[in-house]
Amino acid sequence: MDGVGKTTWVIADGYLPAWSTGREPEMTSHEAFCVLNAGDRPAIVEVMVYYADRDPSGPFRVTVEGKRNRHVRFNDLVDREVLPLSADYAAVIRSNVPVVVQHTRLDSRQAENGLFSTIAYPAG
Amino acid sequence: MDGVGKTTWVIADGYLPAWSTGREPEMTSHEAFCVLNAGDRPAIVEVMVYYADRDPSGPFRVTVEGKRNRHVRFNDLVDREVLPLSADYAAVIRSNVPVVVQHTRLDSRQAENGLFSTIAYPAG
Amino acid sequence: MDGVGKTTWVIADGYLPAWSTGREPEMTSHEAFCVLNAGDRPAIVEVMVYYADRDPSGPFRVTVEGKRNRHVRFNDLVDREVLPLSADYAAVIRSNVPVVVQHTRLDSRQAENGLFSTIAYPAG
Amino acid sequence: MDGVGKTTWVIADGYLPAWSTGREPEMTSHEAFCVLNAGDRPAIVEVMVYYADRDPSGPFRVTVEGKRNRHVRFNDLVDREVLPLSADYAAVIRSNVPVVVQHTRLDSRQAENGLFSTIAYPAG
Repeated sequence: MDGVGKTTWVIADGYLPAWSTGREPEMTSHEAFCVLNAGDRPAIVEVMVYYADRDPSGPFRVTVEGKRNRHVRFNDLVDREVLPLSADYAAVIRSNVPVVVQHTRLDSRQAENGLFSTIAYPAG
Repeated sequence: MDGVGKTTWVIADGYLPAWSTGREPEMTSHEAFCVLNAGDRPAIVEVMVYYADRDPSGPFRVTVEGKRNRHVRFNDLVDREVLPLSADYAAVIRSNVPVVVQHTRLDSRQAENGLFSTIAYPAG
Repeated sequence: MDGVGKTTWVIADGYLPAWSTGREPEMTSHEAFCVLNAGDRPAIVEVMVYYADRDPSGPFRVTVEGKRNRHVRFNDLVDREVLPLSADYAAVIRSNVPVVVQHTRLDSRQAENGLFSTIAYPAG
Repeated sequence: MDGVGKTTWVIADGYLPAWSTGREPEMTSHEAFCVLNAGDRPAIVEVMVYYADRDPSGPFRVTVEGKRNRHVRFNDLVDREVLPLSADYAAVIRSNVPVVVQHTRLDSRQAENGLFSTIAYPAG
């Protein structure tokens, strides 16, 4: 049975802080997209990354098993190329089955963390 | 009369920080889902929690009376099992009547708080 | 001409921190709903406030002139009663013309601010 | 081919903090709208800015090339007039092709940053 959500999600404000403060790995500056696949079938998730001044890269591929949740750090999408630090980017996240995506950044460049999270934009 | 909102809401980035700094209970690290039931009838709310590497748990059940607002800390959903700290999770929140759900985290692992809030994803 | 948006908006996680740190009034802990009325006619905005354990209060009434933006601190909705500090609440915000509502909290109980903002839920 | 998203987006809580702490330009207090144009054609983006007590200004015009992401600081929209600091504002962002817009503020008035981000409101 399919789970809840949509198959295309968008993040428009991507940014990887270039340095961190505090205990690793919890406090390492990072940016993640969190995927819930509440259905039974595995979700094949493909991520295209867009930049300010060069062609997009990807698709980066991630699998989220059925009835599982996966928090993916953009820092870890290294199967093709390392994402540049301190550079703006955006991402389109597509899945073969309905999922829900949330976008979170932990910025620990200063001693105390900046933190935000927002449901990504469900594009279709 | 029914209130405003939807009956299925999703949170994809759940995480319970494992420690806290500052005055309890206000400053205890926590993650909450906040439910508004603006209608007349009680809302029977059922929460399924999804994890990265094990089967989902729940449903955890919470009642929100008519014309009432309830902020539920995930930490307090202990009628079945204690939620693991420092573990990623996600949640699907279903109600028998329309409600609105907002997702908030207070992270006080460092001296100054990280704080975010986002309207959950209205799935249906 | 009417502006963009919807006429019913919901905030589910209301909370007024009970104390503040830093320079007033910018750094006073507060929670606001921000209304954009991009249309020509004045928006008559009515706010109902819901609580955990007592009947809702309101409607509190605010006018936002045409082609104007207004950031309203819940702290200032005192024409009927002072909102309780350190208490959970939620709000339904209705307008006679389409508007857009965003929900922001500045929490300065500790030396450095916690800050969040999210588009409110457009209920109709 | 057109990309994903909508052509009208709204931000209701605009505010430019009047001072900053920390290393420039990363830590300069700022507020940005981030635009993803995942389609092939350039996006001509026009921004109208609304205030509490004077007529709106704009449109400010920004181009986002096809398959590009652009993070625009409101501070930099100076082709017409400098946006006032410490003043509330709101913005309607229109594009000739579908885009996705996210709204982010970094507030570094205190030593540690306040940070938020939310998907803007897709109005049409």
